[in-house]
Amino acid sequence: MIYADNAATTALSEHALEKMMPYLKETYGNPSSTYIFGQKAKEAIETSRETIAKIFCAKPSEITFTSCGSEADNQALFTAARLGLKVGKKHIISTKIEHHAVLNTLKELEKEGFKITLLDVDESGIVNPEKIRDSICDDTCLVSVMYANNEIGTIQPINKIGAICHEKNVLFHTDAVQAAGHIKIDVNNDNIDLLSISAHKFHGPKGIGALYARNGIELSPVIFGGAQERGKRAGTENVAAIVGMAAALKESYDNLEAYTKTLIPLRDKLIGELCKIPGSKLNGDKNLRLPGNVNLSFKGVEGEELLLLLDKAGIAASSGAACASGSLEPSHVLKAIGCPDDMIRGALRLTIDTDISEKDTEYMAETVRTVITKLRH
Amino acid sequence: MIYADNAATTALSEHALEKMMPYLKETYGNPSSTYIFGQKAKEAIETSRETIAKIFCAKPSEITFTSCGSEADNQALFTAARLGLKVGKKHIISTKIEHHAVLNTLKELEKEGFKITLLDVDESGIVNPEKIRDSICDDTCLVSVMYANNEIGTIQPINKIGAICHEKNVLFHTDAVQAAGHIKIDVNNDNIDLLSISAHKFHGPKGIGALYARNGIELSPVIFGGAQERGKRAGTENVAAIVGMAAALKESYDNLEAYTKTLIPLRDKLIGELCKIPGSKLNGDKNLRLPGNVNLSFKGVEGEELLLLLDKAGIAASSGAACASGSLEPSHVLKAIGCPDDMIRGALRLTIDTDISEKDTEYMAETVRTVITKLRH
Repeated sequence: MIYADNAATTALSEHALEKMMPYLKETYGNPSSTYIFGQKAKEAIETSRETIAKIFCAKPSEITFTSCGSEADNQALFTAARLGLKVGKKHIISTKIEHHAVLNTLKELEKEGFKITLLDVDESGIVNPEKIRDSICDDTCLVSVMYANNEIGTIQPINKIGAICHEKNVLFHTDAVQAAGHIKIDVNNDNIDLLSISAHKFHGPKGIGALYARNGIELSPVIFGGAQERGKRAGTENVAAIVGMAAALKESYDNLEAYTKTLIPLRDKLIGELCKIPGSKLNGDKNLRLPGNVNLSFKGVEGEELLLLLDKAGIAASSGAACASGSLEPSHVLKAIGCPDDMIRGALRLTIDTDISEKDTEYMAETVRTVITKLRH
Repeated sequence: MIYADNAATTALSEHALEKMMPYLKETYGNPSSTYIFGQKAKEAIETSRETIAKIFCAKPSEITFTSCGSEADNQALFTAARLGLKVGKKHIISTKIEHHAVLNTLKELEKEGFKITLLDVDESGIVNPEKIRDSICDDTCLVSVMYANNEIGTIQPINKIGAICHEKNVLFHTDAVQAAGHIKIDVNNDNIDLLSISAHKFHGPKGIGALYARNGIELSPVIFGGAQERGKRAGTENVAAIVGMAAALKESYDNLEAYTKTLIPLRDKLIGELCKIPGSKLNGDKNLRLPGNVNLSFKGVEGEELLLLLDKAGIAASSGAACASGSLEPSHVLKAIGCPDDMIRGALRLTIDTDISEKDTEYMAETVRTVITKLRH
């Protein structure tokens, strides 16, 4: 099988799993326990927190562990909303192409009386920072813009957006679930106040995420209970997964240069080949996109049929977000970039990693071409 | 080391870990993906759901996976509260000895305008079902009583409480985090509408829990986002942990008879020995208690000092809930059963499992006696 759906999830790194094993076996103590056996688990958590913080140029006290990226997004948004309420601010700015973990949380906040502005993006999926500036008003308590999009891979001008938010004194959250581990992120340089990550998107385990919150931002819990995570996230800590997340993240960033250098030419070659198929169109920006993201639409093709035949040919691909695969709604991301309905239905996302060879990309391009020809007849 | 803090967390079962490994290694697909590789993960989730449902005499569609027991408690309470609001009911009944995952969530609901009645318990820690009957009024939308207490191990008359709730047409939630895997639970027989469990309390992995919700109860999400878990819990499913939870739970119940037969005599022997120490008092009920729970108070002893010396002597024990260990507050559970302040400070909880031998219990009793004598001088 050629696995080309790394935006949905990634294989757990062998190195990360190795680091996790002691905490799945002998060192199983509860990190909140006072005896040495529990404190060993606690130390592993704190070392992991330091590792993760350092990678994003943050402080360990600014990292809170959550059970997934969605939870981190929820907590970031609810936190900013609660802080906004305290000073009477009830306006949030985001974009039309956010992940559902952001969009559906915003819908909840709308029910609570928040006013939500969802900005348009251009045909590449980029939000114009000046539009954000124009939308910020006295009532604005938060701007939330994803670092990179999960469907089309477009990387946003986060640095510019952060600078505007900083200048306007508005909290800035970025859902970096797709970006973390894949491109360099510096929370200070980018003026990021809140940032969400998810381990299984960068070869860490499923079931663990983290929220960076700049010191001074009082997090609102999403899950109430015990005093874990300084009282901001109840529930016994998932020690092994935390350790695995830190190991995978460090591994990703240690290898970032080689990853980027290998992957971008492969991605561009694949895009180039697929663009030769008649009736095809690249979705997302050509250059400002994640190193492993390929997303094209093919005229007159049903995505579901395309995926099924690719699966049969040994290629695991998707039409968009995995977590929306149960839904019959057309992709809100492709809609937002102005993709016509038939082209939305004919979308194919291939998200590759460095285990893919040039030969694999050739096979993929060839297979897609053959399958599309077949489907069109 | 003698590990005597199984109420805080348990060792991951070798069998469960073995079942998890394929999902930590080769079968890493996203269960929401449509290709066969993702569907294999999906199947593993659904098989696990069936296994868990069957154990509690529930239907698979009644089980929702959460990231921990605390999240399950939160979701159960918020769900009942939201359903109550819809019909104008804003009164919740619970007890003074609940876990903080319940108590702190109730505090949040109180802020939202809910009226919370926390019932007293008797000196054994048992809530009188008739008090529940008396407290239910037209405004009551939920009764939440834990199945068994995490500190003193007292098992509640859940069956009688469930019957009253059923008769009065009020939703009944039980936090079964300490009970699941340790005593038999039948949601139908006990008239339970909502039930929370946590895998790491029965030799499953950390970072996974589940919420049983009787068919017809529309769950309110705690984490908003993708369509996972029928739209009731967003976030990519923690496949390996789900599989591990099911395997560990099944293993626990397959061995329940032997577990109970082995553990109760050991527990009672240990309690008997410790009760011989002058100035000691058993906390909780002598018979209606979890098979592995031992909790005593010793006059004139500081629990923290006791634990430290036991740790040095190779015994991992606790004074109460691990997740409250950072707090300086005296145990709310011991307070509720009328334990005087000095006896609360001198509390020792030993929660044992079947890996403990009779010799170990003798060593524990002897060591506790020696340490206490030392501390009193």
